[in-house]
Amino acid sequence: MTTFSIDAARLLERLRELGQIGRDDNGMLVRLAGSDADKAGRDAFVAWIRSAGLEVAVDRIGNIFGIWKDHKNADDAPVLLGSHIDTVINAGIYDGCYGVLSGLAVIEALKAAGFVPARPIAVAAFTNEEGVRYAPDMMGSLVYAGGLPVEEALATAGTDGTMLGAELERIGYAGSEEPGFLKPYAYVELHIEQGPVLEREGVPIGAVENLQGISWQRITVEDEANHAGTTPMSMRRDAGHAAARVVTFLRDRARNANTPTVATVGCMSFEPNAINVIPSRATFTVDLRDPDEGRLQAEEAALASYLKGLAATEEVTISVERLARFEPVAFDRRIVELVEDAARKRGLASKRMTSGAGHDAQMIARVAPSAMIFVPSTGGISHNPHEHTPEADLVAGANILLDVVTRLAAE
Amino acid sequence: MTTFSIDAARLLERLRELGQIGRDDNGMLVRLAGSDADKAGRDAFVAWIRSAGLEVAVDRIGNIFGIWKDHKNADDAPVLLGSHIDTVINAGIYDGCYGVLSGLAVIEALKAAGFVPARPIAVAAFTNEEGVRYAPDMMGSLVYAGGLPVEEALATAGTDGTMLGAELERIGYAGSEEPGFLKPYAYVELHIEQGPVLEREGVPIGAVENLQGISWQRITVEDEANHAGTTPMSMRRDAGHAAARVVTFLRDRARNANTPTVATVGCMSFEPNAINVIPSRATFTVDLRDPDEGRLQAEEAALASYLKGLAATEEVTISVERLARFEPVAFDRRIVELVEDAARKRGLASKRMTSGAGHDAQMIARVAPSAMIFVPSTGGISHNPHEHTPEADLVAGANILLDVVTRLAAE
Repeated sequence: MTTFSIDAARLLERLRELGQIGRDDNGMLVRLAGSDADKAGRDAFVAWIRSAGLEVAVDRIGNIFGIWKDHKNADDAPVLLGSHIDTVINAGIYDGCYGVLSGLAVIEALKAAGFVPARPIAVAAFTNEEGVRYAPDMMGSLVYAGGLPVEEALATAGTDGTMLGAELERIGYAGSEEPGFLKPYAYVELHIEQGPVLEREGVPIGAVENLQGISWQRITVEDEANHAGTTPMSMRRDAGHAAARVVTFLRDRARNANTPTVATVGCMSFEPNAINVIPSRATFTVDLRDPDEGRLQAEEAALASYLKGLAATEEVTISVERLARFEPVAFDRRIVELVEDAARKRGLASKRMTSGAGHDAQMIARVAPSAMIFVPSTGGISHNPHEHTPEADLVAGANILLDVVTRLAAE
Repeated sequence: MTTFSIDAARLLERLRELGQIGRDDNGMLVRLAGSDADKAGRDAFVAWIRSAGLEVAVDRIGNIFGIWKDHKNADDAPVLLGSHIDTVINAGIYDGCYGVLSGLAVIEALKAAGFVPARPIAVAAFTNEEGVRYAPDMMGSLVYAGGLPVEEALATAGTDGTMLGAELERIGYAGSEEPGFLKPYAYVELHIEQGPVLEREGVPIGAVENLQGISWQRITVEDEANHAGTTPMSMRRDAGHAAARVVTFLRDRARNANTPTVATVGCMSFEPNAINVIPSRATFTVDLRDPDEGRLQAEEAALASYLKGLAATEEVTISVERLARFEPVAFDRRIVELVEDAARKRGLASKRMTSGAGHDAQMIARVAPSAMIFVPSTGGISHNPHEHTPEADLVAGANILLDVVTRLAAE
């Protein structure tokens, strides 16, 4: 089998160009879904699709597709590549955009090489993956996979009071295709890792075999407020202290478990939040993740049990609100093996890994065999202007995607 | 020695009346220093001083004095009683006001009984004890004791951008006396405990022998921000977790020490404070108190040592800012014994205790023998509309003050 290569210079140039679209006066990159900046980014992507000679399609939730098909394979299920081009506030330039632009680069490389695919190949940019302006995140791919009715998604009110459907109309990306109109033969998403593992281990390619289940809870500890100076330690009920116990419990448990479980307390607030008042209320979030549903449930149960004991010993009231819950997603084993095989053939080390973050691939996995390819993130940093992946790794990842697509599109 | 009694009904009625002054449309009591509500409270107090036949004096920092003297004792140092009538936001009606109005009640009782004091007796309401609008707290007594130049205090900018001096002018309480113009022979402050000890032990009278030293620090833990899902536990540096460790360390240490040390973490904030981001910064306050300066220093040293070790093991950066530091104050042993003796003679249990909160008495103790008398606070609650002391305890405390003043004023 011939080995092709993507046009590295063009991919890197487009990444930089797209990364300049949506910078505000302070140089901060913000392309929230449905915004003027999102429109400008979409326009650039559509122009590149057209210049590649592909067909452009937009569905009702605003997902954009660049489709390469011919009269012989037009009726076959396509190999779909993609990710998203919306961003968080103060974003880096790689998250999502790298997968979208690499998907386009892969198609261009195959076209340029005279490759004749047995089935269509398409690249998608899914609407509102980040979920910053409109909840939930991964919305475009969720709708595409049938997990959320398109009317409901379009009626979503944003943090700024806008409605997603109206904003898509306004920027010209309320398309006419029904979400799901292309039923993929397979879906492959290339993405930066957004974590530190590949860089620390010196491995350039991650063959992502699954995606963590996620459990988000908000926990509130309540008690009477007392004066810091006048209440002896033996008489204290301290909501802040009880909250701190939960933080150390979760950390110790996850650290000692020798499992991939991760536990994070990212939000914390005390009330009344005064130096000389014992906190009467502490509110914090718990983010539990594990690629195994049984283990995730066991972690949730262990936390619940700990909270029950803590409420008794500390004489505080503890209430729990569930904010989000996603079961783990297992990706398609055969595509994962194709990724490993492609890396091996190019002499690149690869590592089977779990995605800790959510991605469009977890939604598309509901309707098609799917997998992901990760490349290293410097320092594990993401959602931040310091987000970075060395150019050689970016190019290597895109070429692995190319190899995998070459295999899938020949089937 | 004859035993007198204060006019209980009048004291309770004035407490309720003063407690209605400064209620907002929602019924919330707020009499911040220098405000219109403060003026109204001061006007009521001054009217009561006048109706008692006492001389009114106001000094440059706005402290109000009601002075009972005659031509024979006018040159002698007065026995000074007092506290404050400014409040926190959403206050109860006893904190401060109880001491001021009881002081006035004591003088009225002695006058009514035909008692002839060997020296003047005066009651003071000190400006801005709470420090809510203008920092520092206990400002009027601090200036009175020479701890802060009056010009500097008057130039203090408030949280609302006003200047204390201008506000005192505006409400008519920028007096002409130099702070410190009355050099007290002794100072006695009656106050609600603001803590749970007397109520829990069933003791009506606290003979306050000292006041805790206070050490306030703001601690900042910093680190890189990482994604909650993608960073394995073994690779995490977590500023929030490190902060939680400090909270549990302080609690365990203070709880196990079998000393009166109290340690409180009242303020806590995480950054970026997102559910799915490992905190890159945690900022919190530590309030350490102990009536013994050596032990307070030892606690500060133990915390510093723990932070040093934590920074190393958790690989985080920890910085410490000192916000306030007051050495413990020892009150006058003889006045404390007078309090105990008065309680014994009235058949009331008393308990030597430490004030955990700051009070004007700690400032006046710099210039005159001073002590405090505490009465129980229901549930230990203070700085809150639920602040409460049973009427019998309020009356008993005022009568103990009366007995102690009778002794001191006879000397």
